[in-house]
Amino acid sequence: MRIAYQGVTGAYSEAAALLFKPNVDLCPRPSFEGVFAAVEAGEATHGILPIENTIGGTIHRNYDLLLEHELAIVAEVKLPVVHNLLVKPGTTLDQVKRVYSHPQGLAQCERFLRTLKSVEIVATYDTAGSAKLIIEQGLHDSAAIASTRAAKTFGLDILEGGIQDFPDNITRFLIVSRDGSSLGLADKTTIVFTVTNEAGALFKALSVFALREIDLTKLESRPIPDRPFEYLFYADVTANREDLRCARALMHLAEFAPSLRTLGSYPSWKEPESGAIVAK
Amino acid sequence: MRIAYQGVTGAYSEAAALLFKPNVDLCPRPSFEGVFAAVEAGEATHGILPIENTIGGTIHRNYDLLLEHELAIVAEVKLPVVHNLLVKPGTTLDQVKRVYSHPQGLAQCERFLRTLKSVEIVATYDTAGSAKLIIEQGLHDSAAIASTRAAKTFGLDILEGGIQDFPDNITRFLIVSRDGSSLGLADKTTIVFTVTNEAGALFKALSVFALREIDLTKLESRPIPDRPFEYLFYADVTANREDLRCARALMHLAEFAPSLRTLGSYPSWKEPESGAIVAK
Repeated sequence: MRIAYQGVTGAYSEAAALLFKPNVDLCPRPSFEGVFAAVEAGEATHGILPIENTIGGTIHRNYDLLLEHELAIVAEVKLPVVHNLLVKPGTTLDQVKRVYSHPQGLAQCERFLRTLKSVEIVATYDTAGSAKLIIEQGLHDSAAIASTRAAKTFGLDILEGGIQDFPDNITRFLIVSRDGSSLGLADKTTIVFTVTNEAGALFKALSVFALREIDLTKLESRPIPDRPFEYLFYADVTANREDLRCARALMHLAEFAPSLRTLGSYPSWKEPESGAIVAK
Repeated sequence: MRIAYQGVTGAYSEAAALLFKPNVDLCPRPSFEGVFAAVEAGEATHGILPIENTIGGTIHRNYDLLLEHELAIVAEVKLPVVHNLLVKPGTTLDQVKRVYSHPQGLAQCERFLRTLKSVEIVATYDTAGSAKLIIEQGLHDSAAIASTRAAKTFGLDILEGGIQDFPDNITRFLIVSRDGSSLGLADKTTIVFTVTNEAGALFKALSVFALREIDLTKLESRPIPDRPFEYLFYADVTANREDLRCARALMHLAEFAPSLRTLGSYPSWKEPESGAIVAK
């Protein structure tokens, strides 16, 4: 097993991959598109993608990429996100004149950053890459916002820990593959479907699950920009697509939904037992 | 009427306020919290807040603030977002060594930014503030990503227009006030409710609308971090809360939903007639 992820060593996506399987072989890529390309070309057996965050919401871009490509979801991972202010050993808070991080990392620490006076904030392509930059360029007057793992990887000190504006900052990641073999006993299915703009159309769509006592754990509407009379829905269904009830519900939905695609059936994330090392 | 918005002159929120009502009196504030405070203190009659974007999704932070405060939604505005690379007149693309913008602006132009070589990307608190910085500090080697309006306001040139990665980048804004008087004929109601984690609970919630032939235009689930057995739902209902059918549906929902709050009834956005000036 070899997992492609977006970013460099120390990235949150890498931490999520290692939380799923410690010591797994990893394959960093500069972009989400690069993750899909690596799996499609067989350079990696699997790819890992952030799909939603408790603060920032759904990452629509990765749903779009899942729809553009043919990879299937085979597992999920939920990672608590803890941002830290990292510096070269010896640097004090007074000395910090610039802070580097990914725009999302910066946005999630906005309140903390506003408490720093006369500090310039510099956006980069990933959080861990910012930590790498501090050490590679020997910057004594700069800090990076990144994970605890990035601090260890690059030998940086944590000047301030847990600086994110909101606790309960959790990112859900999806693991995808070409062959679509679920990594464990599948009990969850992700689907994307459209409904026509008629009163009760969504209710009718949900009835195919409710009447079979299948629950949903995620449901989100998204307007389709160029098709004002259709809505796209993302849904997570608490059943394996192979279960007869679920298979029948999906067939029932396909009877009247203008479009329906099953993105994969996979095991829902189980928290590691206490005592397990949680990558942060 | 005086509308408080987050940012400075030239911000997208300001453009949305002016698209709603040209020449309205405006009240800039540094943060979303500041917008709520200005309306609560009577420094502004109304506030305007971005609530969702076709690319970035829902802005959960503003839903949270709506739930924490008592202001009501009284109107909505949909603004097409067009990002531009702005420079001091005379600066060429070769001369640009730094690009300033809000993290969201930078993220939405990531592909374009990657085409620029050896350029440093600097995050700021707002897009228009970046444009202001270029002119105030007389930066000949820097550019800002901001609106066409910001270019006009600060006398900058548009070096590259429409540099956002995706077309159909539309942001929906909500206008809020203390007294909750709808700004026009209300035909849309925004509610937030929770459902218990039982099979069919959401279906039951939606049935109160479907059985009365009331449609939804937005529905989104959000996990509640510390309450693993409840889900929060945001929904937009295509009816005025005062309509008998809608009032009855909301009372019906309140019978079994652990919590339900109506955030306001207001007129759904109508596109300005062609010929009208669309603020970008």
